[in-house]
Amino acid sequence: MSTDTTPPCKPFGFALRVYWEDTDAGGIVFYANYLKFMERARTEWLRSLGYQQHSLKATAGGMFVVSETAVKYHQPARLDDRLWATAELADAGRVSLTIAQKVFLQTDACADTLLAEGTIRIGWVDALSLKPSRIPSDILEALK
Amino acid sequence: MSTDTTPPCKPFGFALRVYWEDTDAGGIVFYANYLKFMERARTEWLRSLGYQQHSLKATAGGMFVVSETAVKYHQPARLDDRLWATAELADAGRVSLTIAQKVFLQTDACADTLLAEGTIRIGWVDALSLKPSRIPSDILEALK
Amino acid sequence: MSTDTTPPCKPFGFALRVYWEDTDAGGIVFYANYLKFMERARTEWLRSLGYQQHSLKATAGGMFVVSETAVKYHQPARLDDRLWATAELADAGRVSLTIAQKVFLQTDACADTLLAEGTIRIGWVDALSLKPSRIPSDILEALK
Amino acid sequence: MSTDTTPPCKPFGFALRVYWEDTDAGGIVFYANYLKFMERARTEWLRSLGYQQHSLKATAGGMFVVSETAVKYHQPARLDDRLWATAELADAGRVSLTIAQKVFLQTDACADTLLAEGTIRIGWVDALSLKPSRIPSDILEALK
Repeated sequence: MSTDTTPPCKPFGFALRVYWEDTDAGGIVFYANYLKFMERARTEWLRSLGYQQHSLKATAGGMFVVSETAVKYHQPARLDDRLWATAELADAGRVSLTIAQKVFLQTDACADTLLAEGTIRIGWVDALSLKPSRIPSDILEALK
Repeated sequence: MSTDTTPPCKPFGFALRVYWEDTDAGGIVFYANYLKFMERARTEWLRSLGYQQHSLKATAGGMFVVSETAVKYHQPARLDDRLWATAELADAGRVSLTIAQKVFLQTDACADTLLAEGTIRIGWVDALSLKPSRIPSDILEALK
Repeated sequence: MSTDTTPPCKPFGFALRVYWEDTDAGGIVFYANYLKFMERARTEWLRSLGYQQHSLKATAGGMFVVSETAVKYHQPARLDDRLWATAELADAGRVSLTIAQKVFLQTDACADTLLAEGTIRIGWVDALSLKPSRIPSDILEALK
Repeated sequence: MSTDTTPPCKPFGFALRVYWEDTDAGGIVFYANYLKFMERARTEWLRSLGYQQHSLKATAGGMFVVSETAVKYHQPARLDDRLWATAELADAGRVSLTIAQKVFLQTDACADTLLAEGTIRIGWVDALSLKPSRIPSDILEALK
């Protein structure tokens, strides 16, 4: 499936395809859905490092929750477009992480167009109290 | 807010407005979203009878889950349209209910246009085992 | 319908109810959906001033597009919660507006809890070229 | 990416992963979202046959619209689950098609569990009048 081929011209990222569900009556991808695209990329990035979110609760006693999002929209994506969403650690604190993310229009020529860029802050919370707590050191090490 | 006025020409129902989030690149409401509209109407219908879904688990030891949906799409809805979604009991078994639902385009003239109609089957499951079980008799009585 | 009652303790805003569609497996409202809630409030705010988005294209030759969003999440909302989303002009340029928005948990006691706050930048684009252009003066006046 | 590997034990289908956006407060995939999963599979099936939906309007003067959906939900899917959605032609008329679709929980052992099955009816409409019209013969031949 071509949507899933890592293009040689980008570092770690995640391939996406735009479906009807992602678009709105303006004929383009609904802006709120870029947060979904970015989350899919973050999830796959964590998975590539060995962490599945549904099992963190059991294995690490906590989970990540989104505490802040900021997105700039540069160009619209359209139905059937192939996208490429990246995720990389921008900053790591003791209880929260800041992830820098970009969504590109993916073309065969590698001359990808930047569609949107986001800064997502996620905090670690204790599974029981749901209160902010220290990110387990093994996770922090793996992400760095 | 005009979206919330019960029109004199319909029985129990729920008023809705179409926002960007509901539409797709075809310029109309994305068909899967009628299931959301119908669920909002079912939820408000249950609430009008005294049942809030989040508290059924604690008070009645179980919850309703959707086991089957069937929807026919007659006419499209568009951005900013006012809709009217109805819900009524079509059939009641011991472990499941069938709800008949309609979504109309709401106009001031009461000459409403039928946009979609659905049949939704919901089953009662035990909160712990998640297995089908008998609908509590007080709920069954209230819905009839 | 109680969800639609303007509480006496807030300025202009829009009442919402949390349905299953809005939640995620964490048991709370999915963070991206606050952008939807905020947009509903912006849309109703514009409508209250006499502007319907679907007709701006025909009457004013352009439309608003979202160019930037920033949201901070303070407290989670849950199934069946009643929310209250506000929208007010924070800044007005010649081609774009900045809207300040808040989402509260709505309680009968008016001691509402702030759940999320956002800053949404929307730009006016020409309907044909889709290029940034000057916001029509009548719209700008009405919003101020 | 493992989500995209065609398992040797199934005919044509499309691999999916469950993300937070797909789930609800019940801890499982929100039932309306299976319609999205099925549509992604239909879209990829059409694409594999050489048809991209966004270009049909220009090349064939029309498009497919969903006129009827029926879904039975057998087992729930959960966060991080790998799914497999199939699409095959069940019936072809002159103006509409019926597509049979299934969504499986994908496991490495090929002992996949059926989660949901749907019957989706799509009609061909003229791009200008939006009225039902005959499906172009080349498309009909390709799908059979």
